[in-house]
Amino acid sequence: MDAPVRRALFDAAALDRLTRVAETDPALVVRDFADPAAAAALAEAEALFTGWGCPPLTAGALERMPRLRTVVHAAGSVKHHITDACWERGLTVASAADANAVPVAEYTIAAILFSGKRVLHAARVYRERRSRVSPIEVIGAGGNYRRTVGVVGASRIGRRVLELLRPYDLRVLLYDPYVDAEEAARLGARSVSLDTLALSSDIVTIHAPQLPETRHLFDRARLALLADGATLINTARGSLVDTAALTEELVSGRLNAVLDVTDPEVLPSDSPLYDLPNVLLTPHIAGSLGNELHRMTHAALDELERYARGLPYASGVRAEELSRMA
Amino acid sequence: MDAPVRRALFDAAALDRLTRVAETDPALVVRDFADPAAAAALAEAEALFTGWGCPPLTAGALERMPRLRTVVHAAGSVKHHITDACWERGLTVASAADANAVPVAEYTIAAILFSGKRVLHAARVYRERRSRVSPIEVIGAGGNYRRTVGVVGASRIGRRVLELLRPYDLRVLLYDPYVDAEEAARLGARSVSLDTLALSSDIVTIHAPQLPETRHLFDRARLALLADGATLINTARGSLVDTAALTEELVSGRLNAVLDVTDPEVLPSDSPLYDLPNVLLTPHIAGSLGNELHRMTHAALDELERYARGLPYASGVRAEELSRMA
Repeated sequence: MDAPVRRALFDAAALDRLTRVAETDPALVVRDFADPAAAAALAEAEALFTGWGCPPLTAGALERMPRLRTVVHAAGSVKHHITDACWERGLTVASAADANAVPVAEYTIAAILFSGKRVLHAARVYRERRSRVSPIEVIGAGGNYRRTVGVVGASRIGRRVLELLRPYDLRVLLYDPYVDAEEAARLGARSVSLDTLALSSDIVTIHAPQLPETRHLFDRARLALLADGATLINTARGSLVDTAALTEELVSGRLNAVLDVTDPEVLPSDSPLYDLPNVLLTPHIAGSLGNELHRMTHAALDELERYARGLPYASGVRAEELSRMA
Repeated sequence: MDAPVRRALFDAAALDRLTRVAETDPALVVRDFADPAAAAALAEAEALFTGWGCPPLTAGALERMPRLRTVVHAAGSVKHHITDACWERGLTVASAADANAVPVAEYTIAAILFSGKRVLHAARVYRERRSRVSPIEVIGAGGNYRRTVGVVGASRIGRRVLELLRPYDLRVLLYDPYVDAEEAARLGARSVSLDTLALSSDIVTIHAPQLPETRHLFDRARLALLADGATLINTARGSLVDTAALTEELVSGRLNAVLDVTDPEVLPSDSPLYDLPNVLLTPHIAGSLGNELHRMTHAALDELERYARGLPYASGVRAEELSRMA
């Protein structure tokens, strides 16, 4: 992993756990598997503890680690570094994707509640007028009672969102091609087609993976299905939405959006999305950051402890899942 | 109640419920108990269905309602219109305070999650730079993992906040002079003194009633106990906080705040709180508004149905409670 990632992931308590569960040199942070300084450690390594910035575990890299049996990743997706060569070698893989889902779901819940109630709109009007604002007038038909929320994708994050939505008086719709009506009901939602979801939701939140078939899942035509005044929340990947089409809908004021990801990821400096009053735009922060990185570290250490005790992983990753995961 | 309140509270479904449970003239909205147009209806009324804008039920007003036995209030506090004369007459009183607690608690949860993660700060930095913002840098030590939240007051709203906080990885402290350690533990919190709460919390949220003894509960000295970078959330009443002292702490940038109420309630137009980047200021909107008014209407109709069936109220108000309620 990258050295700054290592510093952010490990506080003293986490480092203590690591050195208790594994024989390791806590000062050694490998950024390049060909680094001669790492060669001796890699030659002996039975487990890799990986994080953001880990280079791909190619066949060539794996040749330097003849004793390697498992990879534990202290972050969400393993797609960047786990290659077919890993599966061919029979490595087991665990990730902290469940832990990484938590902050994204939390950001989403807050975004849903603030959007439904038009909180940031009310704040802006009050700031601009600097005098009495009628609460009834500024909130209008807003509010979070029996509003309809559409969840796109029962991914780890989508499922966590569904769980966190339970205590609220909201109607929840779910679109996921791999989830049937019964499972959706168990998750607290009604299973619908994506078009029905778009037509019926006051707030749509995207938790689908970035795959060739999900590119522009919200294209111009699907965005047009959203009701006037609806809010689109995207914390997944920018490519799931046609940015040009969405920008038109936001500039016209017909839709609202909360966007933590965009396509391109940093918007051009002249994008209207930076300034629109109906857009909350954040720089890809919904995932684990700050103290939330420690949740991923401890989740990965939990897995490493399971491995050391000969137990199966709680969040093991299987080769066949990767094709439909983020 | 006021006529606009009547329009906001009752949609067709609610009106239908009202006319099924009670003999009533749905067109009659009484704003003044001395109004001759209301005299005949008041002379016969066994129950009053009240809302915002209801004038005080003084002894004189009650004389016009010799058959009155109960008052059902489709809003939170009954302090403005329920007088000693009501209790002396032996009236029973119900309110929709439980229903009104819900949106305030929801606003608070969203405020806690966004504050802990520094979401609005990150949005502002991205908007100002209009170029790449390092997520690790902009969130810094933020994040919602094992952060400490201090809840001031186990009021209806405070209890709802405590309940909604349960699914999150947060440490919760509670200050309430009427709640002991055991009850606090059942509510998912640790009971502490107010000073300990102020000293130990990353985020403090106020849910105490406005009473003579709670005026400036957060005065200059107590605000000084808050850690650098802590956030104060006030959705209760402005008078609970010394606005001048808080303003100094916010102007200096030492503290952050989410303020739905202030003292005075509309701030002077030159108040720095309107523009500070570390303040989210909203115009008293956390309570029921928009579709959330329907939750109060239906809660009050539930009570009216209980009354009609001879059942006790679910949210009855007793005289002795009023002195320590909002």
